[in-house]
Amino acid sequence: MYKVDLNADLGESFGAYTIGMDQEVLQYITSANVACGFHAGDPLVMQKTLALAKAAGTKIGAHPGFPDLMGFGRRNMNVSPAEAKAYIQYQLGALMAFAKAAGMKLQHVKPHGAFYNMAAVDEKLAVAICEGIYEVDPELILLGLAGSKHITAAEKVGLRAASEVFADRGYMDDGTLVPRKMPGAMVHDRDLAIERTIRMVKEGCVESIQGHPVPIKADSICVHGDNPDAIGFVKEIRERLQAEGVSVVSIEDVLA
Amino acid sequence: MYKVDLNADLGESFGAYTIGMDQEVLQYITSANVACGFHAGDPLVMQKTLALAKAAGTKIGAHPGFPDLMGFGRRNMNVSPAEAKAYIQYQLGALMAFAKAAGMKLQHVKPHGAFYNMAAVDEKLAVAICEGIYEVDPELILLGLAGSKHITAAEKVGLRAASEVFADRGYMDDGTLVPRKMPGAMVHDRDLAIERTIRMVKEGCVESIQGHPVPIKADSICVHGDNPDAIGFVKEIRERLQAEGVSVVSIEDVLA
Amino acid sequence: MYKVDLNADLGESFGAYTIGMDQEVLQYITSANVACGFHAGDPLVMQKTLALAKAAGTKIGAHPGFPDLMGFGRRNMNVSPAEAKAYIQYQLGALMAFAKAAGMKLQHVKPHGAFYNMAAVDEKLAVAICEGIYEVDPELILLGLAGSKHITAAEKVGLRAASEVFADRGYMDDGTLVPRKMPGAMVHDRDLAIERTIRMVKEGCVESIQGHPVPIKADSICVHGDNPDAIGFVKEIRERLQAEGVSVVSIEDVLA
Amino acid sequence: MYKVDLNADLGESFGAYTIGMDQEVLQYITSANVACGFHAGDPLVMQKTLALAKAAGTKIGAHPGFPDLMGFGRRNMNVSPAEAKAYIQYQLGALMAFAKAAGMKLQHVKPHGAFYNMAAVDEKLAVAICEGIYEVDPELILLGLAGSKHITAAEKVGLRAASEVFADRGYMDDGTLVPRKMPGAMVHDRDLAIERTIRMVKEGCVESIQGHPVPIKADSICVHGDNPDAIGFVKEIRERLQAEGVSVVSIEDVLA
Repeated sequence: MYKVDLNADLGESFGAYTIGMDQEVLQYITSANVACGFHAGDPLVMQKTLALAKAAGTKIGAHPGFPDLMGFGRRNMNVSPAEAKAYIQYQLGALMAFAKAAGMKLQHVKPHGAFYNMAAVDEKLAVAICEGIYEVDPELILLGLAGSKHITAAEKVGLRAASEVFADRGYMDDGTLVPRKMPGAMVHDRDLAIERTIRMVKEGCVESIQGHPVPIKADSICVHGDNPDAIGFVKEIRERLQAEGVSVVSIEDVLA
Repeated sequence: MYKVDLNADLGESFGAYTIGMDQEVLQYITSANVACGFHAGDPLVMQKTLALAKAAGTKIGAHPGFPDLMGFGRRNMNVSPAEAKAYIQYQLGALMAFAKAAGMKLQHVKPHGAFYNMAAVDEKLAVAICEGIYEVDPELILLGLAGSKHITAAEKVGLRAASEVFADRGYMDDGTLVPRKMPGAMVHDRDLAIERTIRMVKEGCVESIQGHPVPIKADSICVHGDNPDAIGFVKEIRERLQAEGVSVVSIEDVLA
Repeated sequence: MYKVDLNADLGESFGAYTIGMDQEVLQYITSANVACGFHAGDPLVMQKTLALAKAAGTKIGAHPGFPDLMGFGRRNMNVSPAEAKAYIQYQLGALMAFAKAAGMKLQHVKPHGAFYNMAAVDEKLAVAICEGIYEVDPELILLGLAGSKHITAAEKVGLRAASEVFADRGYMDDGTLVPRKMPGAMVHDRDLAIERTIRMVKEGCVESIQGHPVPIKADSICVHGDNPDAIGFVKEIRERLQAEGVSVVSIEDVLA
Repeated sequence: MYKVDLNADLGESFGAYTIGMDQEVLQYITSANVACGFHAGDPLVMQKTLALAKAAGTKIGAHPGFPDLMGFGRRNMNVSPAEAKAYIQYQLGALMAFAKAAGMKLQHVKPHGAFYNMAAVDEKLAVAICEGIYEVDPELILLGLAGSKHITAAEKVGLRAASEVFADRGYMDDGTLVPRKMPGAMVHDRDLAIERTIRMVKEGCVESIQGHPVPIKADSICVHGDNPDAIGFVKEIRERLQAEGVSVVSIEDVLA
């Protein structure tokens, strides 16, 4: 039987600032990545986000970012592996406290933005992240880019890993994402995006922009909850997956 | 048998900035309050501070402050009880992650600076702090100002509390500290400070600036590790306490 | 001839976060208070806000707040007069650089949120703010609460001041605002709010919640641009003022 | 006649944290680079630093950094040219306000740490910095790395530039600094460092680690004031330069 997780970033509001339609997207996703206060989120937002996820019965994970609120954690920062590990542990622990208070348990960790992107190609950084997680709770799952250093680092450290794929992104022959500045980086056609995703899940394969079939592991699909269009897409991809006989379940259940 | 804890604030360095002679003061204290990144401290500093405390065999606690690095958490901020609770949980959880990674366990929580002072006289704030701690770990001990709302709030919430006294501060007839702007706020004479402390521990009593004996509970004595003089004082007060037959032990052992 | 200024807070977005319909409200107001990066705003946002104001031909002023992004500058902070003065100068200078680069000149300064509220009743703080402004540019105008310490402090320091009134707030017999927690704090009826404002401008008088006429100076009316309703209200109040023969002009022109 | 400037970074304290022996080093340097609150410094510190520089009669400049207090501005951050320009203008303006209040005038701008290093090799970034400065005050001087993009960008923008050299760093054949991780990066021998500096000033030449004479322009020498040793070195290099007939004067006087 086919199964896959749908994950989205949540809890990215901050103070008086609101981003994301968290309540709406929670109806359709199976794993929520909760911002931890460095690139987005604040203590009250984290608390409220967990309450929403609990009410929706959605599994939660930490979504730690770089200490760059002004840049929303999207700018590469030259942090050392020691800093990376400490930043992961700090943010992970902060979210765990709110989870404990809410009677919840964390399922996974997915680094955010530039932290995610840099570690995907930098094994030292990826290992530092995985060690940081492992030391705090070896049962946690790293949600990382399919085929990247995230996955190999988790294996090295002994951490479970789930492979993430993107419905709306193009892939290269080597399985990496088409860089955002290149043509073909984004798959704008929604139907095509959904068909590609279904193929990734059911066949473990995606067509590269060069036109070749590329093997890919799809444990979880990254979706967004920023606006009504995005919400509509999540609803649709979920329905289409289910219509194709794919169970949409949490990361834990995918890996089980 | 008499027993008392010696506590000091540690891990208050930040990035390139160093404050405190942490390693030196750790030789003499029995409980370390570790800053958690809001008023002072950063992830790397927290990690290093726990390593030092572990090597010294000193018990550790969280020292959460207001989100005011520029003011070192010393300025009153009008936070709501809900914010206070969330700020406590965030910082407590962050430190717990480093403790977990280091194979250590937190013993206590002591709010910092203005957070401590405001909650000492504001029951709603004090209850919010205690609830925040209780929800994360009901075994933790609140280290609070003797005779203040800290202690009554902890009782109300069902949290253990340890009563803190100050060697170098004057006390009013009602057991509160002499405000810093009033004459008699500070006890500058070191011998006198030590004698007063010994009396607090052995007789449960301190002489007020009005000249009356005031009952006071002394589970823990607040000391400082900022400079060589302060270190000298900690060494001396420890030796004098021991010479007077007082065991200097961790908060947990005092309460046991 | 009657004249009055309409002012609104602008440039309160931050990084990936957007607040306010700045472009829309700029059509109707005559003075824009631009956030300066402490409670809201960031360097890019400040630059863009000035460009919008320039295109709209709207006068600009600095809107400095407390260093409390998480609380949007709305929480009282116990800053010293020296800190207040330095915070004003820092933020004022930062905005002046963008004004200089854009070929614009600042007209005024209006402290934000808790900074505004605390200084309205604390003469030392109000004087510190006015001195801070005066030392940087004595030609600037302080936009402060009508009848408050803002105005008397500006006089003391030799700074021009403009008196701000609120269309949607109740007033006490002594001319102060009805505290937000009391009944009558807000005037919810839009027509009533507009009529009261017109009376303030034309008669220099407002009816208190106790039912008495209270003298009030109305150089500028505070309006908001947060949502379509608020924009509609600004449009309406502007039209009604003009229909009543009141010129809606910048603070500078009101004081001229 | 030979002349050269001695510059050092000042005002890098923050809140309760102190870094640098500012008062001591001010006796010997001729230009002070004042931190502006992003990587170090705060409003009160900026104000105090200008007062110290004024008392010492030392010329001042802005020392803007990346918004990375935790990393002291030493970590590369992938900011866009637009962000770089806005960060420069924000910090420059903030310092200018304090200068205005103190009756002082800024002489120059020197980007800090990673901002300096990245712009030295990235012309777009360097041009953004220079445009940022030029738009705020075209009379300011950019203090940049000799032979780097700093200098060519300033020329392109029409900004005056002063070429900075390092007494304690090795140089490559192409005039760039030996990377810190390579052998020969640092010149540890103080006498040698001073002799090399004198040669740079008097002959416009430095010996590379490959052993060849390399032409270099030395308008200003970077020195440090972090500790007594550093202060001693500044005193010595100043005396040796003067003994060699080199006038130690401000950047402005060097360029005059």
